[in-house]
Amino acid sequence: MISILDFTRDDLEKLFEETDNMRKRLDEGNVPKILSNSIIALAFFEPSTRTRMSFETAAKRLGANTISFTSEEAISVSKGESFADTIRMLDGYSDLIIVRHKYEGAALFAAEIAKAPVINAGDGKQHHPTQAMLDLYTIRYLKGTVDDLVIGVLGDLKYGRAAASFLLGLTHFRPRRIYLISPQELKLRPEIKELLMERGLNIKELNSLVDVLPELDILYVTRIQKERFPDLREYEKVKGSYRISSKLLFSLAKKDLKILHPLPRVDEISYDVDSTSFAAYFTQARLGVPLRMALLKLILLGGES
Amino acid sequence: MISILDFTRDDLEKLFEETDNMRKRLDEGNVPKILSNSIIALAFFEPSTRTRMSFETAAKRLGANTISFTSEEAISVSKGESFADTIRMLDGYSDLIIVRHKYEGAALFAAEIAKAPVINAGDGKQHHPTQAMLDLYTIRYLKGTVDDLVIGVLGDLKYGRAAASFLLGLTHFRPRRIYLISPQELKLRPEIKELLMERGLNIKELNSLVDVLPELDILYVTRIQKERFPDLREYEKVKGSYRISSKLLFSLAKKDLKILHPLPRVDEISYDVDSTSFAAYFTQARLGVPLRMALLKLILLGGES
Amino acid sequence: MISILDFTRDDLEKLFEETDNMRKRLDEGNVPKILSNSIIALAFFEPSTRTRMSFETAAKRLGANTISFTSEEAISVSKGESFADTIRMLDGYSDLIIVRHKYEGAALFAAEIAKAPVINAGDGKQHHPTQAMLDLYTIRYLKGTVDDLVIGVLGDLKYGRAAASFLLGLTHFRPRRIYLISPQELKLRPEIKELLMERGLNIKELNSLVDVLPELDILYVTRIQKERFPDLREYEKVKGSYRISSKLLFSLAKKDLKILHPLPRVDEISYDVDSTSFAAYFTQARLGVPLRMALLKLILLGGES
Repeated sequence: MISILDFTRDDLEKLFEETDNMRKRLDEGNVPKILSNSIIALAFFEPSTRTRMSFETAAKRLGANTISFTSEEAISVSKGESFADTIRMLDGYSDLIIVRHKYEGAALFAAEIAKAPVINAGDGKQHHPTQAMLDLYTIRYLKGTVDDLVIGVLGDLKYGRAAASFLLGLTHFRPRRIYLISPQELKLRPEIKELLMERGLNIKELNSLVDVLPELDILYVTRIQKERFPDLREYEKVKGSYRISSKLLFSLAKKDLKILHPLPRVDEISYDVDSTSFAAYFTQARLGVPLRMALLKLILLGGES
Repeated sequence: MISILDFTRDDLEKLFEETDNMRKRLDEGNVPKILSNSIIALAFFEPSTRTRMSFETAAKRLGANTISFTSEEAISVSKGESFADTIRMLDGYSDLIIVRHKYEGAALFAAEIAKAPVINAGDGKQHHPTQAMLDLYTIRYLKGTVDDLVIGVLGDLKYGRAAASFLLGLTHFRPRRIYLISPQELKLRPEIKELLMERGLNIKELNSLVDVLPELDILYVTRIQKERFPDLREYEKVKGSYRISSKLLFSLAKKDLKILHPLPRVDEISYDVDSTSFAAYFTQARLGVPLRMALLKLILLGGES
Repeated sequence: MISILDFTRDDLEKLFEETDNMRKRLDEGNVPKILSNSIIALAFFEPSTRTRMSFETAAKRLGANTISFTSEEAISVSKGESFADTIRMLDGYSDLIIVRHKYEGAALFAAEIAKAPVINAGDGKQHHPTQAMLDLYTIRYLKGTVDDLVIGVLGDLKYGRAAASFLLGLTHFRPRRIYLISPQELKLRPEIKELLMERGLNIKELNSLVDVLPELDILYVTRIQKERFPDLREYEKVKGSYRISSKLLFSLAKKDLKILHPLPRVDEISYDVDSTSFAAYFTQARLGVPLRMALLKLILLGGES
């Protein structure tokens, strides 16, 4: 489980059905402990409280146990021995390894070494497949389908792993149009853009949200990190254009626009949006648990229920 | 569950009975896994190994799972996003949230945001309700009752969260007399003192333990932190008066005096006291597990057994 | 469980049989949750990701729960209160305490304080009994026996806890000959060497592996830490002689030589050895789980199955 491109639309539909099932079980407080014989290793070489906790909750809801190292231990592990030796250790202890790493390819390398299945929980600048699955599932949950929608993706499209992975995931579906909204400095990398177009996505790049906001069914917001700008004045100039307020939404957006965000947010979405019907990001975060439960089940137990 | 004042005496009596029950189950090695469908989030924004481990043990004894972040992660979480967003994340994953925070009101704020119940595991300078419950239960366990006792509370009464919370808890009972024993600089805050008197406690403040030690049934000791004194010479002057030795106890105390301490201690109780019958602080720490088990059960499953 | 010398050969044989049993259960995916009523405290005052995870996996495979502090918390715990008070806290919460500490005697001291059983997961410079058990079990697993073998122990024999503990463990068996291979500066301490000889081991010390490599059935490699050398030039001189390559092995070693290493390794064994039949260190690491499962079972439940 390295990239969202490794999956077919059918794989995703199957996963989403299982997620529906898990969601129902959670609502009923009736989750069978089908993974009680499994140990899942959380190998987070790069810290990520949200993704880690989401996986950990999913595992524990299904009765699995987890082993993990803290970010501090991850650093000392990385210093003391090779990544390969660490993965081999975890492979000796656990039934599934979830890897997060700042370098592209780390999860793939782990998968080549380990006998146990490996899930990529984010590596490098493009791949975060379970986030993409969650994003797609959330849209299906909110809108009934991912097809035929007009979707805006806003923020740092150059370095943001979640946005790139979401866009790659969209190639499995047939959205009507995708708007890529970012400052010039943070445009999507050309190689990913080409890949998206090759795979049939109808893409348009622009700098400003305002013009297209009225058309959108879904707005996917990501953070713009100050540190990405070589010149702070550049950042100061653009930042206001990428901040979503309830005033803006009520004046321009469709009533049933839904806003997603991989979280954590800093100030790109005002807090006054939280209580509006536009805000879907907390629902999205919450759905991460049943989605990852479904994924763990499918990987560890296969398709049978 | 924010403040010990949110409870009635009846609530506490019910909790104490359930604690008796849990204690019996633990002794028999026969604890039913009644919380095996629950995930409990430990949101410790301020580190506390003891309180965290006590809650974690209680949860796990009952079959619940826990998710938590390390103190290092807590810092980065706090930097990256708002407290409210973090609580919302945990609310999406778990069935109960246990919050510890250095700022007063953090647990209340969390309770307003979350759909899941919130337990305050210590915030600000006054509230640490589960510690107060444990202190009161320990006294009842040792003496059969909290009423009619003469109780000394010694140490830092100004900044010490445990002492303040214990005193607030005592207002649910009818101790005969409370002695507040502290250096001038660390006297109980006037607003809390007034509250205690309004609620009918018979309080007397003094600087020295020696005069009242012979009267005491219970002596509650807390740490005096050097850092609290603007002038280190002031600290050096007083510290000797607030150090309990077995010699002092054998010469002045009642035979059945029991000493409590929320722990950790540094040097306010000599190690030679540990092996005397006065020492009840390790028993107190140990009782934290059945008390928190009872509390988790009552909150998550309600009153029925 | 403080030192490997506390055991008899019969104890070890019994442990190894139970380990065989656990290994079989793991292979079948059929591990009974016999410790589901147990809480195991991992008191790692010195960090050790491998040993901690191995114990944690073993505990969880058997259904036990664990509580632990992070290495950061361990430091603050150590600053704030005495080791004895920390052990007493853990003793109040858990059914078994696993201690790791840099000071010799810490585990023994913990065992004197706690009512719960204590396992030494490494303290000081000699004792790491569960590592020694694992090393001996691995040899038995690979060779059918520990007796009658020619065994080389290479690396830092002066400060290396694993090597010393392994050598002490060998005194329970009758290996044909033991070669101690190390630079002059890192020779085994005389008191341990004497103990080994008193207990009947046939020992020979030397500086170079090459001469004896053709004789060896087992080569136990440990790391030589640069920091041990007062003069870095000394280190540079010797380090090449203590690096094992597949070329060296194929030209000089017996075909069925097996190489052990307590791990983590840095560069003392080339990566090209990993894929040869000589490499047994990953098997050894993997066997740590069933061995520790067996140990936990025998300690917490006694001999009956």
